[in-house]
Amino acid sequence: MPDELPILQFVDRPGITDLGWGHPRPELLPVRQWHEATRAALDTYDWRAMTYGHSAGPGPLVEWLATRMGEVDGAPGDPAEFFVTAGASHALELIAKVLAEPGDVVLVDAPTYHFALQIFRDHGMELVSAPQDAIGIDVEALDELVRVLRGRGKRVAFLYLVPTFGNPTGQSLSASRRDGLTRFASIANVTVVEDDTYRELGYDGAPPQSLWTSAPGGPIVRVGSFSKTVAPGLRLGFVQAGPHVVAKLAGLGYVTSGGGLNHLVALTMAAFARSGAYQAHVERIRAAYRAQRDALVGALRAELPDFAVPAPPGGWFLWLRLPAGMTAKTLLAAAEPLGVSFAEGTDFHIDPNTGDDHIRLSYSLLPPAELADAAALLARAVRSLA
Amino acid sequence: MPDELPILQFVDRPGITDLGWGHPRPELLPVRQWHEATRAALDTYDWRAMTYGHSAGPGPLVEWLATRMGEVDGAPGDPAEFFVTAGASHALELIAKVLAEPGDVVLVDAPTYHFALQIFRDHGMELVSAPQDAIGIDVEALDELVRVLRGRGKRVAFLYLVPTFGNPTGQSLSASRRDGLTRFASIANVTVVEDDTYRELGYDGAPPQSLWTSAPGGPIVRVGSFSKTVAPGLRLGFVQAGPHVVAKLAGLGYVTSGGGLNHLVALTMAAFARSGAYQAHVERIRAAYRAQRDALVGALRAELPDFAVPAPPGGWFLWLRLPAGMTAKTLLAAAEPLGVSFAEGTDFHIDPNTGDDHIRLSYSLLPPAELADAAALLARAVRSLA
Repeated sequence: MPDELPILQFVDRPGITDLGWGHPRPELLPVRQWHEATRAALDTYDWRAMTYGHSAGPGPLVEWLATRMGEVDGAPGDPAEFFVTAGASHALELIAKVLAEPGDVVLVDAPTYHFALQIFRDHGMELVSAPQDAIGIDVEALDELVRVLRGRGKRVAFLYLVPTFGNPTGQSLSASRRDGLTRFASIANVTVVEDDTYRELGYDGAPPQSLWTSAPGGPIVRVGSFSKTVAPGLRLGFVQAGPHVVAKLAGLGYVTSGGGLNHLVALTMAAFARSGAYQAHVERIRAAYRAQRDALVGALRAELPDFAVPAPPGGWFLWLRLPAGMTAKTLLAAAEPLGVSFAEGTDFHIDPNTGDDHIRLSYSLLPPAELADAAALLARAVRSLA
Repeated sequence: MPDELPILQFVDRPGITDLGWGHPRPELLPVRQWHEATRAALDTYDWRAMTYGHSAGPGPLVEWLATRMGEVDGAPGDPAEFFVTAGASHALELIAKVLAEPGDVVLVDAPTYHFALQIFRDHGMELVSAPQDAIGIDVEALDELVRVLRGRGKRVAFLYLVPTFGNPTGQSLSASRRDGLTRFASIANVTVVEDDTYRELGYDGAPPQSLWTSAPGGPIVRVGSFSKTVAPGLRLGFVQAGPHVVAKLAGLGYVTSGGGLNHLVALTMAAFARSGAYQAHVERIRAAYRAQRDALVGALRAELPDFAVPAPPGGWFLWLRLPAGMTAKTLLAAAEPLGVSFAEGTDFHIDPNTGDDHIRLSYSLLPPAELADAAALLARAVRSLA
């Protein structure tokens, strides 16, 4: 029975245009270029690409990453700060492993990336939402919360957020809040885990400077990914952190045992990057995802003139506030029979009673015309509830 | 400063022939064939090879694994039993994560794979050596030990061993001990984690049947690897276990987040296997490693006629007992100045005072002539201590 078992994570639901998945558009995956990069890597590194790799990741990729950070962020990196992982999710898994103990508190943005919440729960961590005001994390209230938690004998392992083109909002934290957060991190000595997965996917100019580069030497750990810029099937990401964190990661028994966590793919990425294919590819997909964002935003604004439809400046997601009296749950129940689906806002909060006034629409998977059709179906669902 | 940072895990020590590394011989890594498999996988699966993969691993590899187990073990597998990992070390890491809590006991063979010990320590597990007699684990004493541990309120998470062409001994557990162990596992309800990394590398006939296939439905978890059969830089391995274990692995937050753990490489392996390249390659390296084993065994027997030099029936290692009065530590101190090195037996025991009467010699990395030269240097070191 060859090929009857699933190959993909995606589950097709015939008749449903599903804006719930944060998956790339298939046409934007660099299949041919990756084949060329594989040939180049095997030509260049030969058997070295196939044996046990250096624990922190192979030098050629680490050096390129350090340089690339200077192009897309405020400052180039120091190669000693990098640890290559098998994806950003894997980076979060490993960070939780080396920085947290079961029972520790992890403070999380609200809303935030839902599967990160599950990763932290798997480590037995206690999830606590960082206090919010209208524009993001309320740093003063956060500082007070940390005092209260510590006063109760709790250890706060770290704060997790996606401050740049975030999941699920597509928005970025303001410069003043970034300043406040990095000051808080240093003074309160709370590590900030900055999920920087979407940095390369800004559609309206340069991304904000990362927390990591804004606070040199501060207690920041940056997580990066090739899943959105190149391909999620590669399972390649990285951590950028202080040497004590890198040493903890590289010293794990399972890293010592198997060597670099995704060695051949990491060296292939080095070849992909050094050939110029990475830069060309990112420019291509940035233009394509910008067009997809514009199509979805334009169609939603045309179809739902009473909604305040934001134009997210980057990333893969649009976070849509529903009008008073309408919930994500009731809208989903109306939408799916009409042939469109999405993620409910509650998925992105710890408290299942929070977030039902928002939905997350992914515009990554579908071309502009299908996104416009989906917006029309969504508008029909909205009108059916009126 | 391109390429100045390390690419490899291996650390070259000029002037030293190092039999301490369990690394493959570079000439035996299938560089050209892997390039062909990459092309085939990208042709066959196209963008599907580059997006988020199915959590338990892509169907084509899982189906092939199930079939392959029927060729190299007592019975084919059921595809639902497999979970594809980023290497066997990663499999051990994940098994510890889903089957153990900090403070649980893990029983380990003695001697056994040293980096597995570190993986379990990283999970806060308490390591306890399984009782041994002259031919391996003493099952009756093990049963008694489990009673004592449980009587003290300890939870025994699992027993770990490499029963087939094991690391560090290269030897296999006898059929009667295998029977005893699987009976013990079922009756005492202790999970056995069977590290089956070396199954394909038997040099004197078929490998023993695995514990997994010998005890259908028993509490066994088999770990497999492509690091020794194909290439460690791929970081590809698997777990074969009951559906409740597979469900726990597939349900981890970090798996849900990133999808299949090494998706593109797994699909490339499926292409490599289906083309016949896997089988041809394993036959080639089996012959080569057999010749390397024979060269090392032959040279040691010629150079050290007073030693009882075993001929390990498979795997990558020779476990050499030193004569009374000679320790691994003193021999190493004499050997390195002469230009040869190895792993001390103590590395493979929990108790640092055990194992100093053995050394582990890897014959995987070097061609026959260099192994013979290394044996001559080792013999000089031995004679220097006489």
